[in-house]
Amino acid sequence: MPLIVQKYGGSSVADAARIKNVARRIAAARERGNEVVAVVSAMGDTTDELIELARQVTDQPDRRELDMLLSTGETVSATLLAMALRALSQRAISLSGAQAGIKTDATYSRAIIEAVRPRRIKHELKDGQIVIVAGFQGITTEEDITTLGRGGSDTTAVALAVALGAKLCEIYTDVEGVYTADPRLVPEARKLVEIGYEEMLEMASYGARVMHNRAVELGQLHHMPILVASSFKEAAGTLIHGGANMETRKKVRGIAHDLNVAKVTVLGVPDRPGIAAALFEPLAQAGISVDTIVQNVSHQGLTDLSFTVARSDLAETMRLTQPVAQGIGAQGCREDAALGKVSLVGAGIQSAPGFAARMFRALFEAGINIELITTSEIRITCLIKEAQVADAVRALHRAFELETD
Amino acid sequence: MPLIVQKYGGSSVADAARIKNVARRIAAARERGNEVVAVVSAMGDTTDELIELARQVTDQPDRRELDMLLSTGETVSATLLAMALRALSQRAISLSGAQAGIKTDATYSRAIIEAVRPRRIKHELKDGQIVIVAGFQGITTEEDITTLGRGGSDTTAVALAVALGAKLCEIYTDVEGVYTADPRLVPEARKLVEIGYEEMLEMASYGARVMHNRAVELGQLHHMPILVASSFKEAAGTLIHGGANMETRKKVRGIAHDLNVAKVTVLGVPDRPGIAAALFEPLAQAGISVDTIVQNVSHQGLTDLSFTVARSDLAETMRLTQPVAQGIGAQGCREDAALGKVSLVGAGIQSAPGFAARMFRALFEAGINIELITTSEIRITCLIKEAQVADAVRALHRAFELETD
Repeated sequence: MPLIVQKYGGSSVADAARIKNVARRIAAARERGNEVVAVVSAMGDTTDELIELARQVTDQPDRRELDMLLSTGETVSATLLAMALRALSQRAISLSGAQAGIKTDATYSRAIIEAVRPRRIKHELKDGQIVIVAGFQGITTEEDITTLGRGGSDTTAVALAVALGAKLCEIYTDVEGVYTADPRLVPEARKLVEIGYEEMLEMASYGARVMHNRAVELGQLHHMPILVASSFKEAAGTLIHGGANMETRKKVRGIAHDLNVAKVTVLGVPDRPGIAAALFEPLAQAGISVDTIVQNVSHQGLTDLSFTVARSDLAETMRLTQPVAQGIGAQGCREDAALGKVSLVGAGIQSAPGFAARMFRALFEAGINIELITTSEIRITCLIKEAQVADAVRALHRAFELETD
Repeated sequence: MPLIVQKYGGSSVADAARIKNVARRIAAARERGNEVVAVVSAMGDTTDELIELARQVTDQPDRRELDMLLSTGETVSATLLAMALRALSQRAISLSGAQAGIKTDATYSRAIIEAVRPRRIKHELKDGQIVIVAGFQGITTEEDITTLGRGGSDTTAVALAVALGAKLCEIYTDVEGVYTADPRLVPEARKLVEIGYEEMLEMASYGARVMHNRAVELGQLHHMPILVASSFKEAAGTLIHGGANMETRKKVRGIAHDLNVAKVTVLGVPDRPGIAAALFEPLAQAGISVDTIVQNVSHQGLTDLSFTVARSDLAETMRLTQPVAQGIGAQGCREDAALGKVSLVGAGIQSAPGFAARMFRALFEAGINIELITTSEIRITCLIKEAQVADAVRALHRAFELETD
């Protein structure tokens, strides 16, 4: 009997009626002749409510305690879903991350799965049970409860699909799949039938709402195809897999954008070795992810160095960077919080001629100034004013005729 | 360093402010030079809310799933309490029932503790931690989560106190201790400084709101003294222990009462062997606890048989009893739902002369008719009309001068 792993996000199990809806979908998959393992997130806003409870008790909740607290959210939805399946005369059992054999390191709040030991899951499947697994959580070798951080339940699902040798990992969420651009910005955006892992990773700046990169990377690493689809509709979703890339290379897959961008420029930096390390090591230690780094040509031994960070990290970044800039004899620091990114995504487009030029022309014709350009093998990204991001996405979607397949 | 085990009930941890209050009390106990293990119940009405969630999903929640669902309530309060203690600069860690080594059988919703393996607790205590344990829950040998049923957190606390060799188990709740009668009925009721285990067990009909008999029995079995006190006030509580009985025997300790009583009478029962078994076996199988059984003298081979059950079990009891009564050729069944019990409690009072007579006279003088009398070694109980229970408690409290020590 083929095995599929499904994952249902928080909005899909937000209340009793939705949990019953999900139970019906799982029962249908079972009745189509599949063994089913379903991973669930916490109901609706449960996780935020638990964090708020912790905040009422202390400003600085201990991470071990917070993880154990938050893990209860997924346990609640998993047990309710198992009950709902039983009410449909299905055999079903819920398992915590610990019971499901999700072994992690002890990095509380963003633990890494070190191994999956699915002995209990296999036993229950063999026994004819539908197995519901509480997502987002695991257990250390010391038997402490951990959570996997953002995208945790997606990661649980893909990890279980890999460990159990499932044919497919299905991620059910509140969007219908991956689109050529954010449909809220581009009404004519088209749902993709398939997309490569790397393209999906690059689309993630808006695709993050579809699923988390960490889970996509895990799927890519283990060649696990991932179907992203709606838990509310029967519409076909988007298949994320490795096979598509060869045939569909050198084609723009979609337009990604990101509004959460801030730029820091260190002015008049002496152009000597070790400067970059001095600037970026404190940020790395603070866990701040630096995105794009651009260093201009040096004039008279001085250069300007710009880099981007998530906007939420800007204040902390400035706090850490200013003393370093002073220490290395730079002339000062400047910040710009009102930026965004727009990206052309498609396997092989960087090395293919013409894509970059068409992109720059489309932006120019829309009256949009480019502050900074970066590229990867499958992506061309322009940093622009935040206020112009929506216009830029629409202009590029039109220019590359993405509304038609 | 002496070790104490404390238990805080749901009303004591009902919100963040109360959790902080409990944290301060635990910190104070720690600073008085004790090792502390604290067992907590779920916050306020959490358990009822989780049951309601389950009920929205299905009329008949599976017991294994329900136990795993309900166990999250105590995990939430335990983690929050550990956080609150850390905010007070105390070292504290929360443990689930599983982590605390509470091993139970697999009787979901009312599991029995089979063993306590407090390896982890001992390790954390040795490490200088205050250990917060989620009450009411345990784990089977198959690693399934169970709950202990009514009084579960009290039972967790006493079991841990025994397993850890604590000098005392402190039960903190929303009442100040055990009183000579329910203070809501008898304003002059007096808080007892101490009470014997057996007396406490007999007082439980109103004492159930203080703590559950199951935990008292466990304390009695292992000679663990239990202090019942308020988590909201600094007032001294009541010490439940074995040592008091010898000196204070043959003294009325208090007046217990119970409003939740219904009587069933099977009329005209043929007086032959096997009848009682035929009547009571179906009730036992349905888990209905039969309290008092009275069979009148037989007249012409026929007898009336009366017994009492909890009022909530009356409908089910009648449903099960009527066909049996018909089958054995009885003349019919009669129910009376509007009854109550009032009991005189005190070690040795049954065998001491005069207590029963004084009790019956006091009730007679208050104009109260006695429907049925039962006695135990330390209790004399009268079944009376429910509407007269409050008057009866007050009359007996006065007659035995319980307002003075």
